[in-house]
Amino acid sequence: MDEFDLIGRYFEPLQLTDSNIKLGIGDDAAIVDLTGNHSITTAVDTLVEGVHFPIGMEASAIGYRSLAVNLSDFAAVGATPKYATLALTLPAIDPEWLQAFADGVGQALREADISLIGGDTCEGALTITIQLIGTIDGAPMRRQDAKAGDILLVSGTLGDARAGLELMKSLDGIAESNRKALIERFKRPQARLTLGAEVRSYANAAIDLSDGLLADVGHVMASSGCSAEIEVDRLPISNEIRAVFGRERALEYAIAGGDDYELVLTVPPRYLDRVMQISTDVSVSLTAVGRVIEGSGVVCLDGEGQQLSIELKGYRHFT
Amino acid sequence: MDEFDLIGRYFEPLQLTDSNIKLGIGDDAAIVDLTGNHSITTAVDTLVEGVHFPIGMEASAIGYRSLAVNLSDFAAVGATPKYATLALTLPAIDPEWLQAFADGVGQALREADISLIGGDTCEGALTITIQLIGTIDGAPMRRQDAKAGDILLVSGTLGDARAGLELMKSLDGIAESNRKALIERFKRPQARLTLGAEVRSYANAAIDLSDGLLADVGHVMASSGCSAEIEVDRLPISNEIRAVFGRERALEYAIAGGDDYELVLTVPPRYLDRVMQISTDVSVSLTAVGRVIEGSGVVCLDGEGQQLSIELKGYRHFT
Repeated sequence: MDEFDLIGRYFEPLQLTDSNIKLGIGDDAAIVDLTGNHSITTAVDTLVEGVHFPIGMEASAIGYRSLAVNLSDFAAVGATPKYATLALTLPAIDPEWLQAFADGVGQALREADISLIGGDTCEGALTITIQLIGTIDGAPMRRQDAKAGDILLVSGTLGDARAGLELMKSLDGIAESNRKALIERFKRPQARLTLGAEVRSYANAAIDLSDGLLADVGHVMASSGCSAEIEVDRLPISNEIRAVFGRERALEYAIAGGDDYELVLTVPPRYLDRVMQISTDVSVSLTAVGRVIEGSGVVCLDGEGQQLSIELKGYRHFT
Repeated sequence: MDEFDLIGRYFEPLQLTDSNIKLGIGDDAAIVDLTGNHSITTAVDTLVEGVHFPIGMEASAIGYRSLAVNLSDFAAVGATPKYATLALTLPAIDPEWLQAFADGVGQALREADISLIGGDTCEGALTITIQLIGTIDGAPMRRQDAKAGDILLVSGTLGDARAGLELMKSLDGIAESNRKALIERFKRPQARLTLGAEVRSYANAAIDLSDGLLADVGHVMASSGCSAEIEVDRLPISNEIRAVFGRERALEYAIAGGDDYELVLTVPPRYLDRVMQISTDVSVSLTAVGRVIEGSGVVCLDGEGQQLSIELKGYRHFT
């Protein structure tokens, strides 16, 4: 049993049938109508030291990243965050650590133009749970709405964060700028909020990349009852990852590395030009990397269109 | 530095000046206007095994209690919960434990007539963070609005949960009904949601009792710039706690035990009859235990009106 089975078996039954729940358990964020005329979006994510980030990572990066992974969930449905709460479990009070952590949270809050409004602190293993609430202007992008024929687009470049995580394990030579840039991708993911909100009306489905491209596209396809082909040669790879790790390893991280917090969109061909124009307008690159087809599962194709055997799976807790 | 200093120093600065934040950091719940015409209430609480409940407490009680302490925050401001998210950090997957935990969460959800809508699961030390969102019909009861002259009322009986916690430590004889009832008070707090919502317009200030009467009334008085006198002889003590622990120990737990999740209200004398009628209507007892006066701090008075020297403090993390 992995975390998806666990949620399905024990917690989905706790969701009531309620027409005011517009999007519920199983997507990146939940959307509910509390007042009969406005949809409220909420998302929650927990980060545990040693699980979601290395033990000893600097506190400002922990703070920033904790907020960023939540913001990314909002980007994935096309919602706009407004307020955050912070539930912080700490082993002890270390003023220097706390100030740096708060600075990191504050930086991410400012960049997203949102405010902290409450929270909870207690004693225990370092665990950070952030919850966001906000609004959405219309229908969300949902995991379940991909359609055969859609173009598969990804934002930014892939694999960098995983590469950065690897580099953090060995501290030698991290002064070099390429390595620093990759580590920064792990520490300070850039949630694609503006992109998500702008493409919301044009993309059929979306997800943010936390578990890795193959796994997360797999989640969308499973929810939508479709299959996807990914052309590996088209994957957007940064110069930095290529310089440090070489093309093969870079592609491996891009396919299955996780922690990218980029968006995957499935877009009907008729909206492709519009979406690419939005990409230009908001200065976040989008790359077509494949398509949605009939069937199930996700296949990776090489430059000749031959199917690659890729056994890598996205990160799943409890497996 | 305790948790209140910590929040004030590091996290209150992250709350922006924003007229849509109707109630923010430092109260039981946050209230924001997301849409320009409706106030949304949100509250978050984390429970850590070994800190908020004993290691090995049965999973259904952990689930119930996790939700109940959050519901109690809603009661304290007079808000109505609608939806919950659950961030669950688990050391391992134990299907039997999970089913019991989900059953406990489900029982509390059903009793409050609310739905789970999302969450997050991950691996680590057992930590449960629940967040609620809901609505409030008018202005909240705030900690900062107690006024000299207000009557201090408490709901239910005090000290039982702390007594139950003590009894859980020593398992001998817990089959006896008084002991069972006290333990149940710890395991399944009854959030006073209906009472809170109904008295909202009549009470000046309110708080739910998590840290203990003396500490929590102290929080209200500090926020309001007032003092309070508590007449110890008036404290509502259950027959069960008196039978098992005797009057003196019962009063000690009632004053400083914590975990009651009853409401304290400060009510202007002109509304006292109205509030007592509501208490009857919703079948939750309210007892006048003292008054708000000018000054600062909280004093306890004995039957002759003499000030008692009480050094007990409420539970504070990190002290």
